[in-house]
Amino acid sequence: MTGRILIGGKEVEGSHFFQATDPATGTVIDSLFAEATPVHADAACALADEAFDIYALTPPERIAVFLEEIAGAIIAIGDVLIEKAMQETGLPRARLEGERGRTVGQLRLFAGLVRQGEWLDARIDPAMPERLPMPRGDLRSRRFAVGPVVVFGASNFPLAFSVAGGDTVAALAAGCPVVFKGHPAHPATGELVARAIRSAVAKCGLPEGVFSYLPGTSHELGAALVADSRVKAVGFTGSRSGGLALMRIAAARAEPIPVYAEMSAVNPVLLLPAMLASEAELLGKAFVGSLTMGAGQFCTNPGLLLAIDGPDVDRFIAAATDALAQSDAITMLTPSIHEAYCTGVEALASQSGVRLLARGRVGEGPNRGQAALFETSAADFMANPALGHEIFGSCSLLVRCADAEELRQVLAGLEGQLTATLHMTTEDEPLAGALMPLLVRKVGRILANGWPTGVEVCHAMVHGGPFPATTDGRSTSVGTMAIERFLRPVCFQDIADGLLPAAIRRDNPLGLPRRIDGIRQ
Amino acid sequence: MTGRILIGGKEVEGSHFFQATDPATGTVIDSLFAEATPVHADAACALADEAFDIYALTPPERIAVFLEEIAGAIIAIGDVLIEKAMQETGLPRARLEGERGRTVGQLRLFAGLVRQGEWLDARIDPAMPERLPMPRGDLRSRRFAVGPVVVFGASNFPLAFSVAGGDTVAALAAGCPVVFKGHPAHPATGELVARAIRSAVAKCGLPEGVFSYLPGTSHELGAALVADSRVKAVGFTGSRSGGLALMRIAAARAEPIPVYAEMSAVNPVLLLPAMLASEAELLGKAFVGSLTMGAGQFCTNPGLLLAIDGPDVDRFIAAATDALAQSDAITMLTPSIHEAYCTGVEALASQSGVRLLARGRVGEGPNRGQAALFETSAADFMANPALGHEIFGSCSLLVRCADAEELRQVLAGLEGQLTATLHMTTEDEPLAGALMPLLVRKVGRILANGWPTGVEVCHAMVHGGPFPATTDGRSTSVGTMAIERFLRPVCFQDIADGLLPAAIRRDNPLGLPRRIDGIRQ
Repeated sequence: MTGRILIGGKEVEGSHFFQATDPATGTVIDSLFAEATPVHADAACALADEAFDIYALTPPERIAVFLEEIAGAIIAIGDVLIEKAMQETGLPRARLEGERGRTVGQLRLFAGLVRQGEWLDARIDPAMPERLPMPRGDLRSRRFAVGPVVVFGASNFPLAFSVAGGDTVAALAAGCPVVFKGHPAHPATGELVARAIRSAVAKCGLPEGVFSYLPGTSHELGAALVADSRVKAVGFTGSRSGGLALMRIAAARAEPIPVYAEMSAVNPVLLLPAMLASEAELLGKAFVGSLTMGAGQFCTNPGLLLAIDGPDVDRFIAAATDALAQSDAITMLTPSIHEAYCTGVEALASQSGVRLLARGRVGEGPNRGQAALFETSAADFMANPALGHEIFGSCSLLVRCADAEELRQVLAGLEGQLTATLHMTTEDEPLAGALMPLLVRKVGRILANGWPTGVEVCHAMVHGGPFPATTDGRSTSVGTMAIERFLRPVCFQDIADGLLPAAIRRDNPLGLPRRIDGIRQ
Repeated sequence: MTGRILIGGKEVEGSHFFQATDPATGTVIDSLFAEATPVHADAACALADEAFDIYALTPPERIAVFLEEIAGAIIAIGDVLIEKAMQETGLPRARLEGERGRTVGQLRLFAGLVRQGEWLDARIDPAMPERLPMPRGDLRSRRFAVGPVVVFGASNFPLAFSVAGGDTVAALAAGCPVVFKGHPAHPATGELVARAIRSAVAKCGLPEGVFSYLPGTSHELGAALVADSRVKAVGFTGSRSGGLALMRIAAARAEPIPVYAEMSAVNPVLLLPAMLASEAELLGKAFVGSLTMGAGQFCTNPGLLLAIDGPDVDRFIAAATDALAQSDAITMLTPSIHEAYCTGVEALASQSGVRLLARGRVGEGPNRGQAALFETSAADFMANPALGHEIFGSCSLLVRCADAEELRQVLAGLEGQLTATLHMTTEDEPLAGALMPLLVRKVGRILANGWPTGVEVCHAMVHGGPFPATTDGRSTSVGTMAIERFLRPVCFQDIADGLLPAAIRRDNPLGLPRRIDGIRQ
């Protein structure tokens, strides 16, 4: 770990430096990290652009091996990765070890995906020279990498959504070189993982520009990366203001490009009547477990509870209040996240019609997130859009609805969300069924009798959702479907085998699954 | 044909009216057509939104039958459709009959696609209740319609890219209600087809809001449609300025939405040396055939020729000049397209370093497009971005490049394109191979030894390309892949069969192909 900027295979010294803070103690950590500038962004994008032609046509097997090499190199970092991450994020060891497992598992899952080859969507419509009134040419298509991709990591998953996180893996799997903007909250963790990726690039004999790592704190750096004409897509996980700013920069380019920003959500949890009648106390307790896990610093944190008013709601609240009052304050990721959380909770408390139900224990030490639960009426909620905005951390708002119709109205008024959760028994099915079309319109994932935190990395996962949960509800940032973000189709008509990409050559040298005249072979 | 506005099942009288022009004679056609206004847009979007929940979950078989009913209803219009289209567009009968066949074939192709069911991308990752350290839930996903879609038709394909054209069919196939903004150049043709769709909606018992037709000439109408909060995507084929304006409106919404606009392209044709040496005369003649077909009013018209300078280029030019000088002027689609063509040709003629090589015959009668061929040097071309802009019509520019490297530089400087064409022999393969990565970056379709006009409707077709050929190079507007524009994935976690969409129920009642743990079954 050197604090240097990693541009392809080169290490560049900075002229300005920044330091991270140990949020658990509030003290600044000694190590100095270079501030990358737009000049470094330019150099990294030039290398990425140069690498593109070779990397985009690298055979799937070699890309798969590369992803596996990255996984191995991350494991090989050893415990220092966990220790640095603990110091920089305040997250506990077990959580970070689990996250490392998830990160490595994600790389290996994508290696399998790349090998399997369906992502290429190879299609062949053979020539019909005898067709009347006009013959048909030989038409073949496959998807290609869109171009160099810029990825911004999240602070709340310093491994799984950061340097070698979901967006990086999906882009590399698709054949896109990645320029990674390092998150300033965990620069040591970031650099260790960046060096692991870089070593895998070298070991696999890939062009150095396949990966660059630019640590920095400035908005100028991020803006320069998104504005660079060689960059063809952006992945981002973070705040709504950050995501929207990047989206605006991308839209203002001479050539606009897609920005996949995952921004904010309150993830409504619907406590349906029969389930609430039967399990109010258990639900109240389990809810607090989900709300306070990791200090609530998850994009899928349950920030909104909807229930039809009545004594069962009071039972739920009593149980939740009890559990919340006993919940320990937990170190938040950064001083600024903690400050935003405190400001958000205070602002919510001061809103008309909002009543504080419970707070968690006051923390000992700096940056401790003290959980909070509020309630309001559906009428007050619907009258005030601010009540539907995310407060990042362990804060949730229960909305008492007069009846099922009012609950539906509250749902209908919500912005796009990552998730919606139904707590229900079979008796609640008619109501759940009536709400389902609305949920399908509003969210990326609908779940029953669980909690939205915990996002499985698999094939059917959708971690996305309509705006403003994300900037592009047509895709996911978790799971194998994420590769589609970074691909575009190209068609070849009457092109000789010698000039065709291997995936769609007549003899199918890669042995890929292909679609002939629309039928998968 | 009544000239009325068709909002779902209702017919609405206008208060202001417009008329189309017969471009062949320049005379205004008698029939009056209502000007739809933002008030009508609001009503149509409300109905589309209302129809969405039912239509988006209509079983694939019913959607397929609906598309086939539309095809049948278009055929049932009979010859009056061809006659009206001839009068309104100046296109000849054979072309319009062929286009009707293409339109109907496209509807039937999508019916087959919808039935086959892979477009739903049904995925199932079964529960793993025993998994350690954490069990996995039951995860299922399918794609859903994005929501109501607004489609703007093109003037140059009054059937295949208009009311029941590619975007409409792809959106309807995906389960999206369509609000169609009628093109003012062919309002009678448009209304006849709109009524055919409407009769199919009624016959299939679908909600009336599945389709509305708003004729009109005003920008306000289009702007109101794209700005409507219930609209979730836009399809457009037309000018660069039109597409960019819609993109800006969509980006400025509280909830930005995707705009799929196909805008402009010059479709470079590369005359590689060995082929040029062997077939200069044949190529010159064939080129003029492609250039002048349909008065050059195709998005894939060959507007740019690139060749390495030498005597074979002069042979090509001599043949092309001969053929062009004998080419008849052809009626263009509208007076304003003809005027823009004339202005564009004049402007190109006045650019520094551009030399006129040939013009076609002068036309007798109004709105006749007189073909034009120019030449310039690579240096002049690269120094002046205006030379790379599309002139809609039979106008093309040949660029003489000093050598292969200069040809590569010209290509590298081009904006995104729909197509690139290689005229080549096997001897040219090394050069073609060297250019291939650049072509893949720049275009949606690469073809050899043919002409880019003539876009096959099939599974492997990509009629799209990087900006500014289109606003979204991740998709196509022709072929079955177009359905993906209008879909987004939704995941269901631990949801009981009774609440799941049929496509991902445990017993697979639709008998669909599905992906279990990532493996297609």
